[in-house]
Amino acid sequence: MIQRITIIGAGNLATHLSVELKRAGYEILQVYSRTEKSAKELAAKLESDFTNSINKISKEADLYIVALKDSAVLEVLSKIDFQNKPLIHCSGSLPLSILKSYSENIGVLYPLQTFSKNRKVNFKEIPVFVEANNQETEKLLIKLASSISPKVSVLSSDKRKSLHIAAVFACNFVNHFYTLAGDFLQTEDIAFEVLYPLISETAKKVQEMNPADAQTGPAVRFDENIINDHLKQLNNFPDHQEVYKSISKSIFKRHQEKNK
Amino acid sequence: MIQRITIIGAGNLATHLSVELKRAGYEILQVYSRTEKSAKELAAKLESDFTNSINKISKEADLYIVALKDSAVLEVLSKIDFQNKPLIHCSGSLPLSILKSYSENIGVLYPLQTFSKNRKVNFKEIPVFVEANNQETEKLLIKLASSISPKVSVLSSDKRKSLHIAAVFACNFVNHFYTLAGDFLQTEDIAFEVLYPLISETAKKVQEMNPADAQTGPAVRFDENIINDHLKQLNNFPDHQEVYKSISKSIFKRHQEKNK
Repeated sequence: MIQRITIIGAGNLATHLSVELKRAGYEILQVYSRTEKSAKELAAKLESDFTNSINKISKEADLYIVALKDSAVLEVLSKIDFQNKPLIHCSGSLPLSILKSYSENIGVLYPLQTFSKNRKVNFKEIPVFVEANNQETEKLLIKLASSISPKVSVLSSDKRKSLHIAAVFACNFVNHFYTLAGDFLQTEDIAFEVLYPLISETAKKVQEMNPADAQTGPAVRFDENIINDHLKQLNNFPDHQEVYKSISKSIFKRHQEKNK
Repeated sequence: MIQRITIIGAGNLATHLSVELKRAGYEILQVYSRTEKSAKELAAKLESDFTNSINKISKEADLYIVALKDSAVLEVLSKIDFQNKPLIHCSGSLPLSILKSYSENIGVLYPLQTFSKNRKVNFKEIPVFVEANNQETEKLLIKLASSISPKVSVLSSDKRKSLHIAAVFACNFVNHFYTLAGDFLQTEDIAFEVLYPLISETAKKVQEMNPADAQTGPAVRFDENIINDHLKQLNNFPDHQEVYKSISKSIFKRHQEKNK
């Protein structure tokens, strides 16, 4: 049974997940972060111990959750003795197997959402994907995940990676387009806020109709006059121009395939 | 005073706008579309006349609204005598001046939203931008626009075009990324629906924080392992791969500039 958890990491995901687990009734024993300030800040929210010294990671936890950026995971893992206690990571892209030298009971808990430190999210709406190397750990992770979300599924490492790629398109790349739109509007002295209703509707619409059917705009109509006119207007924004060209081409191509 | 309106076009925008104007108390006198079926369908909703013959466009309207795709506007305009009645278009990209040979009272009414035929939108939330070549027409358009939305502003042709470009990024390009994400998930047998909470949160978050600050994911951290791994996984999806590369580069570049 899991009662006491040590969380390794104090970034966006570590923060949201550990706060939610505490709310669900788990005891967060300790927070580890390389940066003392981050460890301390998160520990304050969790009423837990904290450390920035890897040697001082507690042996008393029932579960170790590694919530670090992928590039930092391996380095940290190699320095801790997990005594074969359940050990999990939260990465979309790293396979389960990355943990196999470090414990006999390993797993993954991947909440499919974008987390920013000071922004509340409703875990009840977040799909959580789990995976483990044995039935006992899988059962334990399903229970843990179900305590924070009703949408828990078991998913293999390969499928999870695919899901992560799709999420990069649907979230990270999408957000970058909001940024590009905002940057451009700023130079034109138009408030980014005027786009809010359009941004909301675009996100809502795709949840009620197929995204390819929801596509509107000059590229899908291949309205060359508008496209060329827009490209001209973007002359002083070479990055915007580049992106505009390549995405318009991609939209039109996808539309042609759909109508074949 | 405007009471009777002829709407030229029967596409997504023409449909949503004319239905909303009827709801606001205007009489839609007639619908023109090149395609009889489209004209008839929209006219049924509006309880109006319809025609697909350009010679039969009524002389009795107080206002002519051209809601066609940009590339079709000029051709249609040249064939109608508007008797200097108020004549407006609804395009984000076309300047006001495109109408100047066709009436002495010209304007633009541009609702900043994405419209799909069978999807209801709440006009009360849509920013509407108007422009006219004289004060009387401007006043008239402000009144017309205000009857369907509380968010009416006067905006020049140049600024409107900039706004349209930003909208292409924040809506059309965004929707294409939903499509790419969905296409990829389909080949992996994962339901697109799992992305809904992520899509909603991404759109909400950017309305409460600066989009550049909201950026998450491997590209902004320049996590080369993940990026290369994702690119490898996309080997059978050359279009996705291409887009993945160029947008990741753009995200990272923007992030570097922000942190300068």
